[in-house]
Amino acid sequence: MRERIEELLEEKKYISAGNILKDMEPADIAILLMECTKEEVLLLYRILPKELAAEVFVEMEPDVQEELIQAFSDRELKEVLDELYMDDTVDIIEEMPANVVKRILKHSDPESRKAINELLKYPKDSAGSIMTIEYVSLRKTMTVAEAFARIRSTGVDKETIYTCYVTETNKKLAGIVSVKTLLLSDMESLVGDIMETSYISIETLDDQEDVAKKFDKYGFLAIPVVDKENRLVGIVTFDDAMDVIQEETREDFEIMAAMTPSEDSYFKTSVWEHGKNRIFWLLFLMLSATITGSILTYYEKAFETIPLLVSFIPMIMGTGGNCGSQSSTMIIRGLAVDEIHLKDFFRVIFKEIRIALLVSSCLAVVNGLRVYIFYHSWEIALVLGLTLVATIILAKSMGCVLPMLAKKLNLDPAIMAAPLITTIVDSCSVFVYFNIAMWLLPI
Amino acid sequence: MRERIEELLEEKKYISAGNILKDMEPADIAILLMECTKEEVLLLYRILPKELAAEVFVEMEPDVQEELIQAFSDRELKEVLDELYMDDTVDIIEEMPANVVKRILKHSDPESRKAINELLKYPKDSAGSIMTIEYVSLRKTMTVAEAFARIRSTGVDKETIYTCYVTETNKKLAGIVSVKTLLLSDMESLVGDIMETSYISIETLDDQEDVAKKFDKYGFLAIPVVDKENRLVGIVTFDDAMDVIQEETREDFEIMAAMTPSEDSYFKTSVWEHGKNRIFWLLFLMLSATITGSILTYYEKAFETIPLLVSFIPMIMGTGGNCGSQSSTMIIRGLAVDEIHLKDFFRVIFKEIRIALLVSSCLAVVNGLRVYIFYHSWEIALVLGLTLVATIILAKSMGCVLPMLAKKLNLDPAIMAAPLITTIVDSCSVFVYFNIAMWLLPI
Repeated sequence: MRERIEELLEEKKYISAGNILKDMEPADIAILLMECTKEEVLLLYRILPKELAAEVFVEMEPDVQEELIQAFSDRELKEVLDELYMDDTVDIIEEMPANVVKRILKHSDPESRKAINELLKYPKDSAGSIMTIEYVSLRKTMTVAEAFARIRSTGVDKETIYTCYVTETNKKLAGIVSVKTLLLSDMESLVGDIMETSYISIETLDDQEDVAKKFDKYGFLAIPVVDKENRLVGIVTFDDAMDVIQEETREDFEIMAAMTPSEDSYFKTSVWEHGKNRIFWLLFLMLSATITGSILTYYEKAFETIPLLVSFIPMIMGTGGNCGSQSSTMIIRGLAVDEIHLKDFFRVIFKEIRIALLVSSCLAVVNGLRVYIFYHSWEIALVLGLTLVATIILAKSMGCVLPMLAKKLNLDPAIMAAPLITTIVDSCSVFVYFNIAMWLLPI
Repeated sequence: MRERIEELLEEKKYISAGNILKDMEPADIAILLMECTKEEVLLLYRILPKELAAEVFVEMEPDVQEELIQAFSDRELKEVLDELYMDDTVDIIEEMPANVVKRILKHSDPESRKAINELLKYPKDSAGSIMTIEYVSLRKTMTVAEAFARIRSTGVDKETIYTCYVTETNKKLAGIVSVKTLLLSDMESLVGDIMETSYISIETLDDQEDVAKKFDKYGFLAIPVVDKENRLVGIVTFDDAMDVIQEETREDFEIMAAMTPSEDSYFKTSVWEHGKNRIFWLLFLMLSATITGSILTYYEKAFETIPLLVSFIPMIMGTGGNCGSQSSTMIIRGLAVDEIHLKDFFRVIFKEIRIALLVSSCLAVVNGLRVYIFYHSWEIALVLGLTLVATIILAKSMGCVLPMLAKKLNLDPAIMAAPLITTIVDSCSVFVYFNIAMWLLPI
């Protein structure tokens, strides 16, 4: 596709190029443009119909957006800004350097400028920061026919028209009504009679993660955002909630792999930035691992007497770590999707201990057979078997206790994932191993 | 809330209880009902208005659904089935035992039965298995007014009416038109003139994960599903796509923590089932860890001469494992969300190696200082430093090569996550460690 467009550009067939682009989805055009040179981007961008151009603009990476804004004439900038939804404008502003922000605000009309400044005040990750203020509002006293007239006259600029919000004169939210209900109702019915008065709403300062969970749970198209006095201030739409879910999942994955979550995509993040995101946990875990090292030093006599003992350390530490990660992953994910709650604490521990008994006995038997066949020593088989059972029970208990404890302390449970659990379990398992060994073997 | 309802039930105030429930969201009613006794569930369920009852039914866990179906009279079952969307019926059937399935099919009307059987044929995880066949279809020759008349007459049973599908007489999909476009158009316009003819569609056998990605990328409300001849067979709606995203994420988390993905929620899965899901990888990784053990045995002489060397093993293995997990997590996630592609292979490796150099030199210096201060041996500090740099470069390279290799081989990249990478890196790091030690130290 890109080659075809490039060919057309070279032949200066701008209109044909525009015709191809015009039929594509904004997200696809953005991907195509981001592979072009700066000049081509600007050229192609100017060919697009205004509304489509704005939709493409929203889909582009911040650095390309910045380049474009720098290249725009004042009139072009104003045209784009006029077409953008308010929440997208705010998202873009948050990524831009100060001089670009100034230019954007200068070319917004006074009313938008005020709204943008209001939206910028909401804390990052709050419902207010992801909401849009462009919704269709109706009155209780309107008939369905009047409601449709209002949707027709104001709907073109709204992010969604399918859920309409019925407000009182003081902006208090009285109810919601879907276009489906309107369409299936009699034209003379009053909006006040057909609207839903029991609806789910969120507050401006609610965490965006909780907002996303509401979408996931109820399957809504949009949820109204109200202030403390139940005055309607905006709406959040499902596509923004989807973005939040993806963002939060990404964050969880990164934290669970002992990284500081990154703001940008993999390739946009510099080597230096990647290094910075990874070094803190590596340093912390490296220094923590020296505790396991000290425990080993303490039992030097044991492995000087029976050097074979050392060769089982990787197996014991590895198995303990893996068992702990399994449990902590289940619990962290369960907490994240509200499948597990803090009140389930003892139920979870009881379950994990039974699972630990089940898998550890199985592993102990298999490993015991292997050791007996290779080394003909049932004593060592027994030591390893007992160590495995003890370590796995410990690992699985910690794998569920620590994430839940983190949650209780209002920390992110995801920090209690594999890397940290493994490091803690390592120390414990080595300690347990050598104690059992010194008890049962002639050391 | 539950207490209030229970009180009302005890006082036999069924209508009041129903009035409270009636104003709640289906998902919330389902949660409340699932905490009640079997008798209460049935009682409360029968109080609900039919349409709401069906919506609540869909939100319940399969075991409660089964209990309810068993308790329903034939007439009640038929009423619920009539209210359900076809895709929900199919989802429920897939979870039920044979006798319940028979009963459901017996009480469906012949037309639905045929449709259900068709839908049941689509493979698990295909677009066909998550699509619904209840959509609004229009004709090119209709005017906007006629289109609205058709939406009004057929829309009540459709899962979404906001995107309508324009088909030819042979069911071929000609275009799509949104209710927003219809509302903003002139009543006399022809649907054929205002419909979108360039649309994104999916095929019945497409992977549900790719379908979910399309929703994430384009932010659509619904996507049409067509067969190989571009005949419209159904639509997938955004809420189903959201479920798929959550399901796939859950699967990734579980695979990445060395588990076989589970079908049910944490508490619904029995201890035995959890054990089964976890044991395979544990066994495999435990036996693989013996390779590291053998390498250690091979270098017995080294740690018999300098026992201190053993105490650094946990730190080296741990750091190597953590570095590998960081890289593999970034790559697996990047591949999953289409941020990284196979063609980026060398770009990724080059980036990871530079990151490895950066973090490993930092860790080597910190660790070197610590070792020098504690043990006054710059030789050991040097051995450990070189080992860290070599191990980390190796770990980070494997962390990106293995997931991409898995993808290339059409395996799930998620299997190449922390547990497997750690086990492989363990062997390599111990090998590297003792070789460097024997080279630089008097052994």
